[in-house]
Amino acid sequence: MTQATVAADQTPSSSAFRAPSPSWVRAISPYVAGKPIEDVARELGLAPETIVKLASNENPLGMPASAREALGRAASDLGRYPDANGFALKEALSKRFGLPMEWITLGNGSNDILELAAHAFLEPGKCAIYSQYSFAVYELATQAVGAKAVVTPAKDYGHDLQAMLAAVTPETHLVFIANPNNPTGTFLPYAEIEHFLRALPRHVVCVLDEAYNEYLPSELRVDTARWVERYPNLLISRTFSKAYGLAGLRVGYGLAQPEVTGLLNRIRQPFNVNSLAQAAAVAALADEAFLAKSYELNRAGLQQIGAALTDLGLQWVPSFGNFILFKVGEDAGAGSRVNQALLKQGVIVRPVGNYGLPQWIRVSIGLPEENMRFVHALRAALA
Amino acid sequence: MTQATVAADQTPSSSAFRAPSPSWVRAISPYVAGKPIEDVARELGLAPETIVKLASNENPLGMPASAREALGRAASDLGRYPDANGFALKEALSKRFGLPMEWITLGNGSNDILELAAHAFLEPGKCAIYSQYSFAVYELATQAVGAKAVVTPAKDYGHDLQAMLAAVTPETHLVFIANPNNPTGTFLPYAEIEHFLRALPRHVVCVLDEAYNEYLPSELRVDTARWVERYPNLLISRTFSKAYGLAGLRVGYGLAQPEVTGLLNRIRQPFNVNSLAQAAAVAALADEAFLAKSYELNRAGLQQIGAALTDLGLQWVPSFGNFILFKVGEDAGAGSRVNQALLKQGVIVRPVGNYGLPQWIRVSIGLPEENMRFVHALRAALA
Repeated sequence: MTQATVAADQTPSSSAFRAPSPSWVRAISPYVAGKPIEDVARELGLAPETIVKLASNENPLGMPASAREALGRAASDLGRYPDANGFALKEALSKRFGLPMEWITLGNGSNDILELAAHAFLEPGKCAIYSQYSFAVYELATQAVGAKAVVTPAKDYGHDLQAMLAAVTPETHLVFIANPNNPTGTFLPYAEIEHFLRALPRHVVCVLDEAYNEYLPSELRVDTARWVERYPNLLISRTFSKAYGLAGLRVGYGLAQPEVTGLLNRIRQPFNVNSLAQAAAVAALADEAFLAKSYELNRAGLQQIGAALTDLGLQWVPSFGNFILFKVGEDAGAGSRVNQALLKQGVIVRPVGNYGLPQWIRVSIGLPEENMRFVHALRAALA
Repeated sequence: MTQATVAADQTPSSSAFRAPSPSWVRAISPYVAGKPIEDVARELGLAPETIVKLASNENPLGMPASAREALGRAASDLGRYPDANGFALKEALSKRFGLPMEWITLGNGSNDILELAAHAFLEPGKCAIYSQYSFAVYELATQAVGAKAVVTPAKDYGHDLQAMLAAVTPETHLVFIANPNNPTGTFLPYAEIEHFLRALPRHVVCVLDEAYNEYLPSELRVDTARWVERYPNLLISRTFSKAYGLAGLRVGYGLAQPEVTGLLNRIRQPFNVNSLAQAAAVAALADEAFLAKSYELNRAGLQQIGAALTDLGLQWVPSFGNFILFKVGEDAGAGSRVNQALLKQGVIVRPVGNYGLPQWIRVSIGLPEENMRFVHALRAALA
């Protein structure tokens, strides 16, 4: 700490100062991020390359080679601002989904799409509905705009659509549905979601968060872009951070009719998606071989870890994402015996106490040898 | 348009649908972005490499070579999420400014810092003060949260700090000051700003937007990081998009005491700054030779274009940024005779009618030969 800083700390005005912030912003719990591999390595005295990180539902294959090549080409012009309209990426998505470019919103990850939806449709006095055990950003985004959160109890660790529908009031402006859901991995058959959309009053916008869509077996999947054509109050959110392997670059997108898309664009930061993310996403979207490889690797990993968890006699939730939620049967928080034992063996997983699941852990699917490392480490940690 | 899309357009519900959006969001004018060079080239039948873009206050040197090398090293791990805490970049900024890491907020460009400030400190019923002819994002960010904008008249195309102080009421939560100011290029001596900060009631947060700080001659500059130690209601905003040449990557930062920084972090998207931007910014911050070269090039360009504008008999505002605002003396909007004549000669500049300056144009400082191209094209356009 510099001399000047010490002086500032002694200024009475500093300690007494309370910034003029809305009560709902002050009420948000400050975000505590997961530690980078380097930090864990340093703290535990382990070599970073020996650490297996299965904590953030990342693609263990990393970025596709096709995207890496696109990065190299795009890197020549980074003194220029990104294309604020995202022409090339929107054009590629438009062709892929058979929707006009004007129906597409690009986001700084799909986190950005979720926040844009909260800002565009919520305000103090209005409500958002989401499910217990669904993605944490729904709560954060709702709190950040001072709206009221209505959390419906989970059903078999997933969404109870009937309860969500029953919770709709005139004050409800937004409902978030994650399918597959994170952190539980549950899947709602599409027929049930369409039934829900048909019944949902038109004064409510439905965000259908499909961050894990590309991990679904083809026989379960329907072309939800067609729903966007049918339901003017539907916003589909997708990401390049999972199966496409571009989490570090930050790019996601929303699909919706022009009324919804126009409102999102009114509040979108013009240069929210950086130039390299746009270029890499165009390449990744076209790289069907990489997507197929990611899918197959994930299916095998789900089986591998699922079988091991069964073998260990642990309860786990069948997953349709790239992760599995399992119950340790004792405290499994960050400081718990089990989590610390995993860390000491160089395996980082995600405790989910913040989701109201203090005895559960979410493990991301890794490469086969990473999954093996996890299984061995868990076996030792539980012994 | 696909068959399905046509069918959707015929659904009565689509055309009748009105999303449940706050009135203030709906009132925002949809953002219309500048066209990429490729679009202008296509429309005018020009080769892209012959076009000179002096429209967005970008660094004509592009990204520093040091940052490019850092990109290459960082690109190996893009399947992973970015470091949500931005450890390496915050550590470098902390050393540079002699402030604790906990006083730093990273943003997806400084646009993100400005928006975080609006979200953290404004709400419906509260006010933000900013100056006529100051940066457009202040208005957008204020509107997006439903707060009231109080716009004080400009004084000599810059801020009238006395008028801004006089406009403070109990409802004022935020004041934006740009120094140097965009799009006019004006500079407020730091003694005047510190006088303002001393007089500003502590229930108001002051955002001091120093996006163009690095273009100031050293004799005009003071170490405003020391002010952050003295004023708990001060938030300084800086960017890597201008003198550091990283506009395409998106990275900026805020400096403030923990009370303000803590509130910004409550609403910050955890992965708002991508991995490559963080790595490139660390390298660019250390590259003092590049910064000095950018500065010198800009000083020479300001002289070159200023002299030419004087020679053409045009009114212009002495600039402390990397651009000059000049008055054409007739309509200078996007569709105007002058702007179209410049475009046909392959020169893209920025009309500023949206700033209430319909007869003015802002031209960014380019390479010497680009500045020359602009001067010749302007002479021809005015003839």
